[in-house]
Amino acid sequence: MTETIISSATREVTIGFDQPFVIIGERINPTGRKLLAAEMAEGNYSRVESDTIAQVEAGAHMLDVNAGIPLADEPKILAEVVRLVQSLTDVPLSIDSSIVAALESGLGVYQGKALVNSVTGEEDRLETVLPLVKKHGAAVVAISNDETGISEDPDVRFAVARKIVQRAADYGIPASDVVVDPLVMPIGALGTAGRQVLSLVRRLREELKVNTTCGASNFSFGLPNRHGLNSAFLSMIIGAGMTSAITNPLHDPEMTGVMGANVVLGHDQNCAKWIGKFREPAAEGAEGAGGRREGRRRRRG
Amino acid sequence: MTETIISSATREVTIGFDQPFVIIGERINPTGRKLLAAEMAEGNYSRVESDTIAQVEAGAHMLDVNAGIPLADEPKILAEVVRLVQSLTDVPLSIDSSIVAALESGLGVYQGKALVNSVTGEEDRLETVLPLVKKHGAAVVAISNDETGISEDPDVRFAVARKIVQRAADYGIPASDVVVDPLVMPIGALGTAGRQVLSLVRRLREELKVNTTCGASNFSFGLPNRHGLNSAFLSMIIGAGMTSAITNPLHDPEMTGVMGANVVLGHDQNCAKWIGKFREPAAEGAEGAGGRREGRRRRRG
Repeated sequence: MTETIISSATREVTIGFDQPFVIIGERINPTGRKLLAAEMAEGNYSRVESDTIAQVEAGAHMLDVNAGIPLADEPKILAEVVRLVQSLTDVPLSIDSSIVAALESGLGVYQGKALVNSVTGEEDRLETVLPLVKKHGAAVVAISNDETGISEDPDVRFAVARKIVQRAADYGIPASDVVVDPLVMPIGALGTAGRQVLSLVRRLREELKVNTTCGASNFSFGLPNRHGLNSAFLSMIIGAGMTSAITNPLHDPEMTGVMGANVVLGHDQNCAKWIGKFREPAAEGAEGAGGRREGRRRRRG
Repeated sequence: MTETIISSATREVTIGFDQPFVIIGERINPTGRKLLAAEMAEGNYSRVESDTIAQVEAGAHMLDVNAGIPLADEPKILAEVVRLVQSLTDVPLSIDSSIVAALESGLGVYQGKALVNSVTGEEDRLETVLPLVKKHGAAVVAISNDETGISEDPDVRFAVARKIVQRAADYGIPASDVVVDPLVMPIGALGTAGRQVLSLVRRLREELKVNTTCGASNFSFGLPNRHGLNSAFLSMIIGAGMTSAITNPLHDPEMTGVMGANVVLGHDQNCAKWIGKFREPAAEGAEGAGGRREGRRRRRG
């Protein structure tokens, strides 16, 4: 029963085999968001603030924070954003950068035990990121590609994941602090992409005994009704044993797929979260004096 | 790679491990439908006709036909309904009754290889239904309860399923013609109901090598947003290996969950069915002359 504990100064989140699925909000990331990138480069973090609040309100258990803006001072910006986000919310953070100096800078100001996003199986990345993870007592996302790129062969991706877990152990980082991303390919490009992830998640859980995460929305790239397909995909990978995802908590179909999967696996005690979210307004209104009438009015509207 | 082939006079449907999930439309059933029951008892089958057409149009691959009306002449009505439905559609049927004489009467007029719904592990049921299934060269739904009722212990339900498969073999019915229903309990009443079904489906597939079916909507009994929960549940049980369900094809969330699961498992070649159902109107319009403008207009509306 592997558990990965991530924390802020005042709150812990457990990613684990017997835990509700952990949603890591993906929005604070300038990649592909021109306006956000321009604002962040100027030190204007108003959109970071609103994204923080909206994602936590929508049910994110953690937030991913990325400041990857070309030509900008990423270490400085990432540290500022980490500080800002931690002043606004107590949900733990995933500190996300491809630049080791930026990870170091973000970890330097972070309060709590962070999730470092990410290390790959590339030698230079292993040798620079893992010591940093160990030094800060953090956990780390392990992405199952290496110098040769992303293999379409799931056995190769599994072998890369195993190598990263072993190397982490050499640095004194337990497998329970390595969260493996088996890499989700677009099903429109690779017809076996879904089956690959389902079988990799089971193997990572049973053989390596590690927690798992992924960028789920990549699965539906290029197809219509992406939210509907992402929702089914999320339910199925949770059923196969996936324990977290970096995704957009503002999308209702995806969140319903995740919440439904928690119910199916018995990870939503007495279905309390499901009932709390979906019970009809009339029932809510009935709880307080005068509320019943308001509930009815809402229904008519 | 177990395959159960069900047919009408002119069409075959294959329930199988490597096949798209088979939807058996549940609507032609007077249980809990007072108006339909009253009409059927009077020999008025107009609603049976409209339910037949609507379910096939909505994507049902097979239809379940039940005529269980208290005090009515069920064998006569079931035979009439089977004849009528087969005159309207070529999708194969599941002939559904708790009365053996009604099963016999329905099978007597059926054209093709039917699915008989159902046999249980009860001795009298095994001894009367299985010879009938063998005589008509049909396949059969095996429900995993016996004289002691429905066990909450999944190991007991598995043992009942194994017993039925063995008894069917004694009558010359191969395991590939037994489709096991592991019994879906309401999650609101039994917190382990989801995990039980997921693990039973895997065992039935790996150990008994049989196809599976269920009444999926029972899972969400008593909870709000039943369609959303059924959708997640269907995606997950398909991911675990369930190969068919008796359900309502007129509900969009459930059908989206099933179609999404087919995509994830690579059972929707080139995602063609998903794209066909969900591509945007503008893209459709672009195919024909003048259509492009119409597509745009639709988008604005």
